[in-house]
Amino acid sequence: MDRLTIIKVGGKVVENPDTLNVLLDQFKRISGYKMLVHGGGSTATQIAEKLGIPTQMVDGRRITDAATLDVVTMVYGGLVNKKIVAGLQARNCNALGLTGADLSLVRARKRPVQTVDYGFVGDVEEVNSRELRLLLSENVVPVVAPITHDGNGLLLNTNADTMAAEIAADLAAFFNVYLFYCFEKRGVLLDAEDEASVLFELNYQQFEGFKSEGVINTGMIPKLENAFMAKKRGVREILITNAENIANGRGTRIL
Amino acid sequence: MDRLTIIKVGGKVVENPDTLNVLLDQFKRISGYKMLVHGGGSTATQIAEKLGIPTQMVDGRRITDAATLDVVTMVYGGLVNKKIVAGLQARNCNALGLTGADLSLVRARKRPVQTVDYGFVGDVEEVNSRELRLLLSENVVPVVAPITHDGNGLLLNTNADTMAAEIAADLAAFFNVYLFYCFEKRGVLLDAEDEASVLFELNYQQFEGFKSEGVINTGMIPKLENAFMAKKRGVREILITNAENIANGRGTRIL
Repeated sequence: MDRLTIIKVGGKVVENPDTLNVLLDQFKRISGYKMLVHGGGSTATQIAEKLGIPTQMVDGRRITDAATLDVVTMVYGGLVNKKIVAGLQARNCNALGLTGADLSLVRARKRPVQTVDYGFVGDVEEVNSRELRLLLSENVVPVVAPITHDGNGLLLNTNADTMAAEIAADLAAFFNVYLFYCFEKRGVLLDAEDEASVLFELNYQQFEGFKSEGVINTGMIPKLENAFMAKKRGVREILITNAENIANGRGTRIL
Repeated sequence: MDRLTIIKVGGKVVENPDTLNVLLDQFKRISGYKMLVHGGGSTATQIAEKLGIPTQMVDGRRITDAATLDVVTMVYGGLVNKKIVAGLQARNCNALGLTGADLSLVRARKRPVQTVDYGFVGDVEEVNSRELRLLLSENVVPVVAPITHDGNGLLLNTNADTMAAEIAADLAAFFNVYLFYCFEKRGVLLDAEDEASVLFELNYQQFEGFKSEGVINTGMIPKLENAFMAKKRGVREILITNAENIANGRGTRIL
């Protein structure tokens, strides 16, 4: 099977022009099929604030009312996505910006209200890997924003880490998938303040242990849960790393 | 040659959920290859205003400074585009939202400063009709937002009427292209206040005459200039009409 590299890149990396340029330069160097999935949360928060729309978070997850859905649709699907696309085109990567609604790539279900009403948040139901494979076979580089749709005309806000994991897991039947979670740190840190405390490897048992001891940063927990899910579903290799290290493969390897 | 219908739809039609639904229902009924090019100017103006970014217009054209470029990128490429895509997917049209940066579909040049500095506004240099034909051959329905790029990483704001005309003219070598400019009136009116004054046909000589007499509304002039350019470059049929009449072909025919 051919190699496919999927880079998930966090908002803090893509929202700063300098780190975005580092990322895109490194991304350009990746050989074989490749794809990028991005966030954009802090820009969304800033623009929402300027528009007078309050941001509400529960356990690091955004509550998405109708006004917030419009903000994330335009920030993730428009502003952040198209800047990445233009930057990749300037580097001769044939980038195509996409949300889950485009070509119905990712269909989701509005999250049912349990203890928390997350609003217009979507849980992934189906990845349309046929369309993605067709694009990749034409040497297109998909750049995916974390917006999905329900198939009935409703757009939904979906966590970018989850979207990357779901897409990676689905494509694992057709490619040797390498999934890199790229954020502002060098990997999973045992001490959030100390970059030297990066773990080289992490298995599920260790993760459970660190989680119960409160060693791993709470923001990292859903990312790692997605990573272990993708690993379990056949993704060849998963690495948590930063923009500088995506080409050389340094970071925390998920076992 | 196969028939390709390109619908250019103005902001006022797509920004109102009711008229958008009428448009999408009519669009769904069009047989053969089809594509949609949309505006979104009034939403961009509203959001810019809320963000405290002043809107400056010269002869109906938006002056696009860096902050305004961000606004149009997110509104046209994100908010408006993805709502149309989700609406078409709900109608079983396999829509794909695009800007000119995606797949480098439309490359433009930043408009040189002459009497007016329009800022980050792009004049179309090249339409990548190969990629568009590939998408159409896969029964994809392109939904194009009026943002282009310069190939060096810069996004540019481009008039949606011009973008539709340029794409239509370029594809005229491969398809029998039908280009419909769809806005809130039934066609070109001799009296802007009277829908019954719609012209059934308009040739260039008449257009020049009406223009010099000041009969045609100033906002209509650039649209018609684009229409005549596209006609001259081989577009089979061009109609100025409203959402209700795109399927039955009523409106002002460009000769």
